[in-house]
Amino acid sequence: MTDSIEQLTARAAELDAADPLAHHRDAFVRTDGVVSYLDGNSLGRPLHATRAALTTFVDTTWGDRLIRAWDEEWMDAPTGLGDRIGRVLLGAAAGQTVVGDSTTVMLYKLAHAALAGQPGRDEIVACADDFPTDRFILEGLAAERGLRLRWLSVGPGTGVTLEQVEEVLSERTALVLLSHVSYRSAWIADMERITAAVHEVGALVLWDLCHAVGVLDLRLDALGVDLAVGCTYKYLNGGPGAPAFGYVAAGLQDRLRQPIQGWMGAADPFAMGERYEPASGIRRFISGTPPIVGMLPMRDMLDLLEAAGIEAARVKSVALTEFAIEVHDALLAPLGVELASPRDPALRGGHVILDHPRFREVTAELWRRGVIPDFRPPHGLRVGLSPLSTSFAEVLAGLAEVATILGAELG
Amino acid sequence: MTDSIEQLTARAAELDAADPLAHHRDAFVRTDGVVSYLDGNSLGRPLHATRAALTTFVDTTWGDRLIRAWDEEWMDAPTGLGDRIGRVLLGAAAGQTVVGDSTTVMLYKLAHAALAGQPGRDEIVACADDFPTDRFILEGLAAERGLRLRWLSVGPGTGVTLEQVEEVLSERTALVLLSHVSYRSAWIADMERITAAVHEVGALVLWDLCHAVGVLDLRLDALGVDLAVGCTYKYLNGGPGAPAFGYVAAGLQDRLRQPIQGWMGAADPFAMGERYEPASGIRRFISGTPPIVGMLPMRDMLDLLEAAGIEAARVKSVALTEFAIEVHDALLAPLGVELASPRDPALRGGHVILDHPRFREVTAELWRRGVIPDFRPPHGLRVGLSPLSTSFAEVLAGLAEVATILGAELG
Repeated sequence: MTDSIEQLTARAAELDAADPLAHHRDAFVRTDGVVSYLDGNSLGRPLHATRAALTTFVDTTWGDRLIRAWDEEWMDAPTGLGDRIGRVLLGAAAGQTVVGDSTTVMLYKLAHAALAGQPGRDEIVACADDFPTDRFILEGLAAERGLRLRWLSVGPGTGVTLEQVEEVLSERTALVLLSHVSYRSAWIADMERITAAVHEVGALVLWDLCHAVGVLDLRLDALGVDLAVGCTYKYLNGGPGAPAFGYVAAGLQDRLRQPIQGWMGAADPFAMGERYEPASGIRRFISGTPPIVGMLPMRDMLDLLEAAGIEAARVKSVALTEFAIEVHDALLAPLGVELASPRDPALRGGHVILDHPRFREVTAELWRRGVIPDFRPPHGLRVGLSPLSTSFAEVLAGLAEVATILGAELG
Repeated sequence: MTDSIEQLTARAAELDAADPLAHHRDAFVRTDGVVSYLDGNSLGRPLHATRAALTTFVDTTWGDRLIRAWDEEWMDAPTGLGDRIGRVLLGAAAGQTVVGDSTTVMLYKLAHAALAGQPGRDEIVACADDFPTDRFILEGLAAERGLRLRWLSVGPGTGVTLEQVEEVLSERTALVLLSHVSYRSAWIADMERITAAVHEVGALVLWDLCHAVGVLDLRLDALGVDLAVGCTYKYLNGGPGAPAFGYVAAGLQDRLRQPIQGWMGAADPFAMGERYEPASGIRRFISGTPPIVGMLPMRDMLDLLEAAGIEAARVKSVALTEFAIEVHDALLAPLGVELASPRDPALRGGHVILDHPRFREVTAELWRRGVIPDFRPPHGLRVGLSPLSTSFAEVLAGLAEVATILGAELG
């Protein structure tokens, strides 16, 4: 016996009324044209604070301080902002996180550094169902360096398990690159035990945190993670194409060298020295001039996440995906939709994926109506619920519209 | 017999009154704290239009269109903006210029692609006095690929000549990387004849346009340039750390592959394909998600440069550096300052460098007084005059302050 739409509406209202984080929704820009935003895991909404911060930046820091601002604040922005992400979201002590470059470039740099730092080991382990950029970067590095890729493959709705990883690990393994939260299924890989298993064979692990940071309470230092990369335009609301962050465990930094040797990663950038001497510590993972403008918006979301607390954000994130599944069971399953994410919240990140052969057409129509999920081939509707900007009513409004359109499509 | 300060003041007023581009100065944000900005070649001033553009972006494109904007405009931003830079500033037909990544990363990608595309050639030619990032990138690539670097060296106030390049070119040469305008002396290397000489031995040339774009009337297509990289936060006013552009001649694109294989450079980014297939054309030189926020401010300056015309901007740029040299001769040379840029305007870019052993201390005091040139070790004061935002009066005010402080220092 499933809930009726009236029951679901009442339930959403109850959940919103009881939500201790509900007031944070006012911090985000919202327009009448968007009925339900279900893609906060692809691009977070802007904050009102960001509009003001950008204006102030143009008028004061950039417009008045001009190049003096490099000395006054910008030179330290990549590590300062990195430290803040580390402290608020990653469980990382200062001096291990840096912001800059695209996620792709940061992945390349850290994977390259890890491989070059492990001569004699000739295998890379990765997941064939991870996001294309992760796979493509490794494919290029493996071809160039003559390494072998060991691909793990997973079924719909699941993700990589410890057992799968253990099966291919050996003393030939140089690097394991995995998503902590699968961009498709939202499956949470077991960071703790996989990291330990990788270390057991003397290899390094690089975690892709793109779909994890901002919704999971991460503990990189405590779990002994070697390397990690994450995205800031999803749950960190940094704006489209905002720069990524990279994490390199303190103990590894001086052993590793990244390949894109730029002036900003040099020991003394303004010495204009003759030869490249990498900075010590995390600064050596910087390459070019930091993308200061692109770094601005994420600060506002970090303020908000710090105020809310990442534990509370995770609690709400779980409640949101639980409710999305409840609505799925009531309204969508009867139309033939399948849940392709774990039902166990302990194994699920901040989004859920729903499958139906008609979802490509349905998504196009949803977008026209101001209901905005993501579509992921072959036929996944991805519902990403950013905890501080999404209400339970918004989840229901969006998924009810899916039911309406799909019902009409199925005629 | 040199001019007095009164004569110079009258001359500056005359030049400003006769300047057909003078009215464009109103387009830039200006504050009372900045008396004279002499570093437009390091970081261009913001435009008023940029403040408005950022606000509108937060409220509409990002805030309302959300991920729908990827389909509607952002996916084409790297090439659309690249085409525009190509047309307005580079003399480059559409389909050869792309925006994204830092200058350092873009240099790495294009240099790597050029070297990988020329197996059997094992030498790289570059200038030992070019900007550190250019040298550091090549140092890393040469070490990794077992190539030999042939360094050209230049004296103060000059730059690389055709004869120097010809002396080291051979059938072993894979790549020549040179600055079109030297970041120190402002010397303009002979792009036409050097490019032809490099082609004569079958090698590729990569021009660093960081200090050239926006002040020189470039003709990349006409001169048969292979590859180029340029910066957008100097004369293109894109804001600190704005993304670079890369140019790859149409005929080379499908022969070359860059190493940072990301989803956005794949033939079909949304196919989530199994293996990396590079896009055809210039898109294959994109790696990760384009830095959309960081790309916004430069559009406003492109509007302005297009309205003014790059030929007119060059005319004013020459007039500004000529006047700076006139002021140097009158007020600074008597204090022992030396001009370390070419006197012939045909050999000089948009800045001049002045040398004096006390310039480190002088620069610090100038900054405190709101006169902002750059300092370049060992003792260069670099005066960068962005043509659309700088008046002749501003040049005089700044350099007169240099004379005042230096005169007091020298007691």
